[in-house]
Amino acid sequence: MLRNEGHDVVTTLEPGGTPLGRNIREAFLETEDAVAPIAELLLFAADRAQHVTYLIRPSIASGKIVISDRYADATVAYQGAGRGFDRKTIDAVIEIATQGLKPDLTLFFDIDVESAISRAQGRTDDEAKKNRMDGETAEFYSRVRGAYLTLSAEEPGRFKVVDADGTVEQVFNRAVTIIKNFLAS
Amino acid sequence: MLRNEGHDVVTTLEPGGTPLGRNIREAFLETEDAVAPIAELLLFAADRAQHVTYLIRPSIASGKIVISDRYADATVAYQGAGRGFDRKTIDAVIEIATQGLKPDLTLFFDIDVESAISRAQGRTDDEAKKNRMDGETAEFYSRVRGAYLTLSAEEPGRFKVVDADGTVEQVFNRAVTIIKNFLAS
Repeated sequence: MLRNEGHDVVTTLEPGGTPLGRNIREAFLETEDAVAPIAELLLFAADRAQHVTYLIRPSIASGKIVISDRYADATVAYQGAGRGFDRKTIDAVIEIATQGLKPDLTLFFDIDVESAISRAQGRTDDEAKKNRMDGETAEFYSRVRGAYLTLSAEEPGRFKVVDADGTVEQVFNRAVTIIKNFLAS
Repeated sequence: MLRNEGHDVVTTLEPGGTPLGRNIREAFLETEDAVAPIAELLLFAADRAQHVTYLIRPSIASGKIVISDRYADATVAYQGAGRGFDRKTIDAVIEIATQGLKPDLTLFFDIDVESAISRAQGRTDDEAKKNRMDGETAEFYSRVRGAYLTLSAEEPGRFKVVDADGTVEQVFNRAVTIIKNFLAS
């Protein structure tokens, strides 16, 4: 939609938005040992630091719109609420990794945990393998969802909740409305 | 020497003291892109967090002596003095990664930079390839050495300088003297 309207857009993701980040993602997914929660927190931060330095900041500097599938809020939700790290540690690691770079607009596609798990189970085996990091309990995802909803309450200007119940087209149209309102403001 | 004297000893290293750590080390060494200094700092911290959680702390808890080739001081020296990160950032990342665990005794094998580079060049090609992270300038190593010597001045009780000029046997004997004095104290 943004490209059709003439914007120069970069789509990217975390973890794995850079060659180093993809190596880090593999290192995490393929290891034979359990990953310590602190190591996980720092690995995602390393991925993010590389992503910010070599992809996000240069793209913004050249006038592009950067759309990233996940960023620092995911760490607040997954490592903070999910793994139980205190917010001070989380915020310190995010600050070091991003050097203070925050998104102008964040969309949270919100759906109840039961529907989300049901959708995830509809993925192919290959996709499921790549999402080892998502193999958690419903209770874990409830805490993660709660953390995202808390973020939307803390920063209502930046952080917008999109109702993700419905068809792809319905959800897309909800997101488009929010993005157009943001660009017009 | 310690084993001959009846101690239960674990020898390990950073980076790469755990399966995840070895994956991280590969991720770092094999990537096609330059590694951002902040990403490097956080990657080594992730390796250390895994190492502390799954190898060092359990080994100490079971009464073993742990000898690690590098630990947090290497980050102060390489990422702090070498890459120019401020000490506050370095210390915050180390504190998160180690959760405050410090060695009882640290040995710094000190040698002038020219001799060190000359020794490193005597390594085989295969060893050299594995040490991409050591491919820096003499000026860089001078700053790193200075940082280690500063640490020895800051914490003379823990941090001991071993003169590394001489034969392997001479240097070994100097280290043994320091270790025996430490264990007798």
